[in-house]
This record gives sequence, C-alpha cells and structure tokens, in this order.
Amino acid sequence: LDYQHVQVPFEITLWIMLASLAKIGFHLYNKLPSVVPESCLLIFVGLIMGGIIYGLNDRSPPVMDSDIFFLYLLPPIVLDAGYFMPSRPFFENIGTILLYAVVGTIWNVFGIGFSLYGICQVKAFRLQDVSLLHNLLFGSLIAAVDPVAVLAVFEEIHVNEKLHILVFGESLLNDAVTVVLYKLFRSFCEMPTIKSTDVFAGVGKFFVVGLGGVLVGLSFGFTAAFTTRFTKDIRVIEPLFVFLYSYLSYLTAEMFHLSGIVAIISCAMGMKRYVEANISLKSHTTVKYFMKMWSSVSDTLIFIFLGVSTIGENHEWNWPYICFTVIFCLIWRALGVLVLTFFVNRFHVNTVTSKDQFIIAYGGLRGAICFSLVFLLPDFHRKKLFIAATTVVILFTVFIQGMTIRPLVDLLAVKRKRESAPTVGEQIHIRFLDHLLAGIEDISGHWGQYYWKDKLEYFNSKYLQKILLREYDQPKSSIVLLYEKLERKHAMELAQAGQLGHSPAQPSFLSSDRTVITDQKLEDTLNPAVLDNIQEILARNLYRIRRTGPAYNRHTLPGDSEPAEQAKEILLLRHKSL
Amino acid sequence: LDYQHVQVPFEITLWIMLASLAKIGFHLYNKLPSVVPESCLLIFVGLIMGGIIYGLNDRSPPVMDSDIFFLYLLPPIVLDAGYFMPSRPFFENIGTILLYAVVGTIWNVFGIGFSLYGICQVKAFRLQDVSLLHNLLFGSLIAAVDPVAVLAVFEEIHVNEKLHILVFGESLLNDAVTVVLYKLFRSFCEMPTIKSTDVFAGVGKFFVVGLGGVLVGLSFGFTAAFTTRFTKDIRVIEPLFVFLYSYLSYLTAEMFHLSGIVAIISCAMGMKRYVEANISLKSHTTVKYFMKMWSSVSDTLIFIFLGVSTIGENHEWNWPYICFTVIFCLIWRALGVLVLTFFVNRFHVNTVTSKDQFIIAYGGLRGAICFSLVFLLPDFHRKKLFIAATTVVILFTVFIQGMTIRPLVDLLAVKRKRESAPTVGEQIHIRFLDHLLAGIEDISGHWGQYYWKDKLEYFNSKYLQKILLREYDQPKSSIVLLYEKLERKHAMELAQAGQLGHSPAQPSFLSSDRTVITDQKLEDTLNPAVLDNIQEILARNLYRIRRTGPAYNRHTLPGDSEPAEQAKEILLLRHKSL
Repeated sequence: LDYQHVQVPFEITLWIMLASLAKIGFHLYNKLPSVVPESCLLIFVGLIMGGIIYGLNDRSPPVMDSDIFFLYLLPPIVLDAGYFMPSRPFFENIGTILLYAVVGTIWNVFGIGFSLYGICQVKAFRLQDVSLLHNLLFGSLIAAVDPVAVLAVFEEIHVNEKLHILVFGESLLNDAVTVVLYKLFRSFCEMPTIKSTDVFAGVGKFFVVGLGGVLVGLSFGFTAAFTTRFTKDIRVIEPLFVFLYSYLSYLTAEMFHLSGIVAIISCAMGMKRYVEANISLKSHTTVKYFMKMWSSVSDTLIFIFLGVSTIGENHEWNWPYICFTVIFCLIWRALGVLVLTFFVNRFHVNTVTSKDQFIIAYGGLRGAICFSLVFLLPDFHRKKLFIAATTVVILFTVFIQGMTIRPLVDLLAVKRKRESAPTVGEQIHIRFLDHLLAGIEDISGHWGQYYWKDKLEYFNSKYLQKILLREYDQPKSSIVLLYEKLERKHAMELAQAGQLGHSPAQPSFLSSDRTVITDQKLEDTLNPAVLDNIQEILARNLYRIRRTGPAYNRHTLPGDSEPAEQAKEILLLRHKSL
Repeated sequence: LDYQHVQVPFEITLWIMLASLAKIGFHLYNKLPSVVPESCLLIFVGLIMGGIIYGLNDRSPPVMDSDIFFLYLLPPIVLDAGYFMPSRPFFENIGTILLYAVVGTIWNVFGIGFSLYGICQVKAFRLQDVSLLHNLLFGSLIAAVDPVAVLAVFEEIHVNEKLHILVFGESLLNDAVTVVLYKLFRSFCEMPTIKSTDVFAGVGKFFVVGLGGVLVGLSFGFTAAFTTRFTKDIRVIEPLFVFLYSYLSYLTAEMFHLSGIVAIISCAMGMKRYVEANISLKSHTTVKYFMKMWSSVSDTLIFIFLGVSTIGENHEWNWPYICFTVIFCLIWRALGVLVLTFFVNRFHVNTVTSKDQFIIAYGGLRGAICFSLVFLLPDFHRKKLFIAATTVVILFTVFIQGMTIRPLVDLLAVKRKRESAPTVGEQIHIRFLDHLLAGIEDISGHWGQYYWKDKLEYFNSKYLQKILLREYDQPKSSIVLLYEKLERKHAMELAQAGQLGHSPAQPSFLSSDRTVITDQKLEDTLNPAVLDNIQEILARNLYRIRRTGPAYNRHTLPGDSEPAEQAKEILLLRHKSL
C-alpha cells in the first residue's frame, strides 16, 4: 500500500465526492430542500463530519485554508455568477447597486466598529483591551454580505428580478470595498502611528482597486474573445479559453492587490457575447454546463468546510461581545438600507418598495469570505474571540435568516420572478423602446442610461465586433438568436417525439402582404441587416407561426389530428399561388 | 505585487494557456499539421522553450516531474482513450492484443536487455560496468510502446479499425507488464541476492497487477453507473461522477501497486453504456467534450514538457550504447511482431496482412511514460546514460517514425478506415449475425467469442441493467439509440436551415403490410421489447424512410421542391385510408 504517493489528489477527489453525494442525498427526499436551504444542510453535514474527526483524533479538525478558499473555491462561483448575470437589470440598477455596495458597506463597517467599541468600554464585559482599530478591522470583515451565501439562498426563493439583482449585485461588488478597508485597517494595526495621508491614500485606493479590477477583467475578457476567433479548426479546446482567461484575470487582479471578484465578473460579462458568437453550439453547452457544475461543487465544498471548521477549540466565548455583534449587524444593515433607499427613491420613478427594503436588509447573509478573512488576521490575543463572533454571525444569518426568508417572502407577498421567458414580441418592443428613449434623451440633452447604452452599442458594432467576432460581417441580432434557440429546442422536442418531417417550406407569397405594415414601423429603428434576418425568418415560417398554439403545447403531442387539415391547406394555398 | 501568493495556480494556468495557444497556432496554417504530426511540433516548441529557459538562467530547465505526469497528466488521456474505445473491434481482437501486449513486451524487454548487455561486453565501448540487471531494467522501461505517442500519431493517419486497435490496444495494455517488470528489476537491483522464488513471485504478479486493475476499474465503473441512477433532480453534477469515479479507480489501483491504466480503462468501458443511458443529453455532451478537451490539453502539455526536459545537462553521451539502443528497439520489435503474428494468423481466418505487420512494428512509438520511468530510476552512476538513450529513442521514434509513417501508409496503400458510419441496415444485420453465430457456437459446442458475448449480454439484461439503469423496464437497443441520434442530428440540421415543420404523422396503415416479412425473420433472434421499439419507429416514420435520400443529403437543402408533392401524396393516402 502506497498511500502517500496518491494522497493529495485522492483526498481532494474524496472531498468532492462527499460533497456531490451529499447533494444527491438531499435531493432524494424532495421535501427537505423545499423547507431547509441546501446551504444549511451542507453546513450541518460539515458539523457532523467535524464532530467525527474531532471525536476520533481528539484534536481540532483542520480549518478551511484561506488560500484554498480564495484561489480555488471562490473563483468558479464568481465566474458562474458573472457569466450568467442578467446584464439588463444589472446595468439598469447599477447606480443603486453601487450605492449599497460602496456607501452601504462603509456605513456598516464604521457603524458596527464604533458601536462594538462602545460595548468594549463597559467594564463589566471585560473587553477593554480591544482597541478601536481592532473593532474597526473586525467591522470591515463582518460587514460584507457574502455572494456565495446570498446566491445559495436567493436561487431557491425566486424573488423578482430587480430585488434579486440588488442584493446579489451588492454582495459581489462590495468585495472591492471590503478588500480595501480590511487591508487598510490591518496595516494600521501594524503601524506605530497613523498619518492623515495614510487615510487619504486609503480613500484613493477604493477607486484603484475597483476600477483596476474592472480594467484587468475587461482586458482579459476581450483577449479571450479575440482568441476564440481562431479556434475554428480545433473546437475541442474552445471551452478551455473561457475558463483560463477568467481565472487569469482573477489571479492577476489578486496579484496586484486589486479586487479579484470585480475582475472576474467584468471578464465574464465582457467576453460573454463575443465568445458565444464565436464558439460552436456544443462548446457553449459545455461551457455553461461545466461552469454550473464547478460552481455548484465549490459552493457545496465551501459550506461543508465551513461546518467542519466550526468544530474545535479556536473559539473564545464572550457572551456580550458575540450577542452585540449579531444585533449590531442586523441593526446597522437595516438602518443603512432604509437611509440609502430613501435617497435612491427620490431619484427614481420605479422605486424600491418597503417590502423589498425589508428583504434586502434581511437577505444580508454572511458567509465563507468573512470566515476566511478572520483566519487571515494577524495573531493577537483576542483573535479567537473574533473567530467565535464571526462563526456565530455566519451560522445565525445562514440558519435563522436563510431558513425564515422563504416564509417571509410568502407572508409579505413579495413580487416574484415571472415564470415565462419574454416572447419574441416583447423583445422586439423592448428594443424599439430602447431606441426611442435613446433618441428622446439625445434630443432633450439628458444623457441617461439609454443614451450611454446606445453609444456603447454603436461602439460595439462599429469597432469591437469587427475585432472580436469571427464572422463580423453578418452579426445576428439577439432576437434572431433567440428565435434560433427556440427553433432548436422545438426541433429536439419533435425529434424526441418522433414527429419530424418536412415543413411546408417557403410560403413566401404569404409574407409579402403581411409584413408590409410592420416594415414601415420597424424600418426607422432597426438597421437593415436585422430587418432582413427577421423578414427572412418570418417568410420562412409564417405558416407555422400562425398555428403556434398546438405546436408549442407541452401537454399534447403535436400533429395528432391536423396533418390532413394542414396538407389540405397547403394544397389550397399552392393552387391559389400558381 | 504579490506574486508568491498566486504563483502555483498562475503558473499552471499559464502553461495550459501556452499549450492551447500553441495548438491554435499550428492549426492556423493548415499545411503544417498535414505534414508534421502535432506531437513533433509540440516537442519542438518545448525544445525552444527549454533553450530559452536554459539561456536565461544558465542552468538546466526543470524536468517534468514524474508524479505530475502519472497523477495528473496521464489519467485524462487514458480515460479519454478508454471511454471512446470502440468496444467491438477491441473485444474481437482481445486475444491478439493481449499476445502483443504481454508476450510481445516481455520479448522486447529481454531481447533489448540481453543484446545491450552483449554490447556492454565489447571493451572498446567502455561500458563494462553496466550490469545485466541494469540492462534488463533499462530494457523494461524502453520496451513499452507509449499510448500517448501512438494515439497522437495514429489519430491523424486514419488506418483501418483493426490495425488501429491492435497498435493502440497493445500500447494501453502493456502498462501492466511494464509496471511489473520495471518494479521487479528495480527491486532486484537493490537486493543483495536474487532467489528463484522472487522470480516466480514476479511472474505471479503479472496476473495480480493486470486482473487486479480490471477488478478495481470495473467496481468503480459500476458504482459510478449506480450513482447516476439518482441524479435525476440535479443534472448539473452528473458529469462530475464520470470523472471522479474514473480518477478514483486510477488512484486506488496505483495505491495498491496495480495497473492504473488498466483500471481506468476498465472503469470507463464498464460504466459507459449505463451512464450514458442514465444521464441527460446535455450532461453527455459535456462529458464527451470535456474529456476530449482535457485529454487534448494533457497531451499537449506532455509533449511540450518532453521538449523542455530534453534540454539541459542530464545526459551522458556514449555513441555505441545509444545507437545500439535505437537499433535493437527497432529490430526486436520487428522480430516480435513477425513471430507473434505468425502464430496469430494460424488461428484466425481474418489474418493480419504483411502490410499491417509492418505498420504495427513501425508504429511502436515511445513517449513520456519511458521518460518518466527513467527519471524515477534509483540513483546510480550510469543513470545519465540511460536518460540520454531514452531521450534519443523517444525523439527518434516520434520525429523520424512519426513523420514518415503517413507517407509509408500512403505508399503501401494500407487499408484505410471507412469514412461513413454504418447504416441502420448494416447494424441490424450485424446483430442478426451475432445471434446466429452465438446459436451455431452453442450447438457445435465451441465456446468462442459469440457464445461469451451472448452470455454476457444475457447477464447484462437480466441483472446489471436492473441494478444500474434508472429506467430499466424499458431498455433501448443500440439500434433504437442510433436511430434517435440520427433523428436528433437531422432535427438540428433542419432547425438550422429553418425547414422545420410538422411531419405527416402516424401513417400506421402503411406499416402493417410492409413489416410483416421482416417480422418473421427477426422475431426468432430479437427479443420482443426491441422488436416493439423498431416496429414503433418504422410505423411512425415509414413515409420519411422511403424518401430518405433527399432528406439526409448534406449538399442540397431539404424541402426545396417536394412539399407540394409530399402534401399531395399524404392527401391521397389519407383519402385511400378513410
């Protein structure tokens, strides 16, 4: 037996296997995941595992390594989040998200830090040796909402798109703020004296860390898109580039002390549309599937490790400090959301309702990022107290808030996500309105989001697409792509039901008189290439579009009774046209 | 700048990126890969890289770590090989493959070992200090044909299926023999005296290492299949299990000093059909794609590392020893193939032609396995000579043989692989003949391959499928699966061409009189469930099967002219039937 030789990969594989089997186990009992969020169940499994290890070895089980977390477990989750980020609601609410992420996080850090310092002044609690700086450092790591925890819970409760993007976007973008404040306070702790220039340098760093991350991410994203222009002959390594470049962007950002999370998200969002157009359909399926798989495994491992790391003797228990930490976390977040939303609502027509505000405040879950940061703290005599407080806050938010948020959403009747995807008609209208509003903004001289979106779109189609797309001369509009996707799905359904045949093709005589009216309306807002595409599709499929009802019905088998009717109709039409 | 923090993942990612970019680079010039095999180009890139590193640092570039090779780079390639192994030709030629792999490798080891020992006795060469045991040890590592190198070259030249499986199967299965002989001689080198019992124990080990590998592999494979029974609700982690279980089988086998390569191949071949039936279509695409991607990257990295490791000061140059090594490798392999094939041809009707024999002998490429094994040798004063000889043999076989094998195949007019996939009709006939031959073998009392195949198939459908498949009550025959695959492909083509419509469904009145004759023939050999499936499909699609010509033609768009005809015909048939 030569265990040592294979130990490292063997143990990694076993951990991943345990995580996957745990996931299967939960889903075997359908009722369990509908009541308790998966993250809670996984932490619970971790606690049991940790207990077993502790019992067998009689010493604390190994703590989740911060390096492993930040270098290997976090990137897949963030990449997945960035790649599948719904870009429209994200950019529509980018102002609000940034306000919550930057101002909100700073508010929380200082709020929690100063109030805990106040608690430390009470003599009865025996906490007088915890300095203000240490409290602020603790505040900086405990204030940040965790994207992994938020994603795990919010993916299951299906709140409306805007609410989801507000909480989730904040949890992703606050990374830049957390990184800066955490490193700032940590270096202050080690400095003998703090000058005012240091404080100003810290403020300047916000922009460097955040914007630097965006820049690193976008440059890697565009390089990735550019690379996939040349993979036509070796389709099989296409998916690799998506992963390699995103990961490189994360590592590069981390290397320069920028925000890795912001970098990988910008990279994923930047490359997505170009890469998707360049790579083959199968490569795309692989990319999407593997991303989901990877993030799902990372997510599972993180929660299990969280559970395992909780067990042991790393904790110093001090009731007042721990209880007040939980209370202050809740209070300051609630206050912050209320105050910030008040300002946000003054400048927006589409306001954040009070129900939404409650869910935003309540959905501020803490998770593995805090946990890893607290273990990265420099050694000082109260570190174990901070570890204990962080663990309690994480368990409290994940278990209590995570488990009660679904009933609360039901109770408050928070607006849910719409179930169906937007129809082609809706999409056309949204595009139409976008162009219209961009024109209005241009004329009125108000440079709002539509104006910038239009400018960006122009820049994209004028320069970026020519550089980054393989077949840039025939760019397809998103509507055409959506149509093709629906068509493929339909084809697969037909093939599975064995109902595949030859369509009554090219009834072009029909299209000519029917599309005239639409043409005049669309011609002003859509460019000719898009229009040609749409016309071609309509011409090709108008017969089927008319009878779209039974064709797309999922509950009846298509073609049960109509073939004779259909055939007759085609014949009649043919006769007419000849 | 904090490079140390991200160094490990950053450098790994950069190497993979370099490998992928090199691959893209070659394929940009279409002429290059058609003359020079990719493996040669990659080694060349590696040589340049190594030269640069050597020039900059003024010391030998790092040598490929044997652990990294055996634990991380080799498994993906072997998994890919095992998973996509064409099982029918493999099992049809298993006897010949095993003969080449076991007897052939032993023949080569002892042939090369003893003749090199003979060379060492010539005083002028100054090699008298190399003992017989060291020569045999060297023979054991240089004799084995390398699956990675063989795959890289043979994938590009498309020889016929039988020839391909003979060379490739040998290269995979000789791992068990190589492992045993290499470890045996290495332990002999360290022993003071060798007893005869040790030699017998060594012979016994062959069976333990080989069969043990098969056993470990199959048990993990069946566990994987069993696990995928329960993944219906979390499709997204399905592909993971294929990779996890295969990798675990490899690591477990290595841990117990069994043959990891044999284990992972058995695992992949054992799980394939059950896993494919259990997992979703998209998971399956992901599995296939990712396996190909991973093996392709590993393969690229191995050849680049081979090139990098060649540069440096690890070599002791001795002209006679190195030249004779190359010559003996060629001679003993050629002799071995001739002698073994003589015996093989005496017992087979379908003989191995002399052209095939030449290609088998000539295709005995050495690669990274030899290279890793020679670096794993215990330190002794002539190790650098062995390293030099191994490097030369690898470069000679990969460059000279690898580059000339394609012109030779053309020159000799070796039978090529058939381009088209077998039709449904051919598949039905092959099945029919299988059943017929199994019956003949049973009656004549000759228990040949068809008898055993039939028994295995019975065991599979009686027990294994019930345990391992999720929906075991409706197992689908391979013909039905093939048909469904063709149907899906066709649907996708139609969807892409925009020619999707509703077929003239269920002309069941046609099927009744046309399938009667076939029924009587098939009923005896096929079981009722399969028959029902085929009948159902025929009934559903007979209309389309008759006009299959234009429908599957890739050069004309379907449905260009016939819709009216088709519609008319349907109407006529309907009228008749009503």
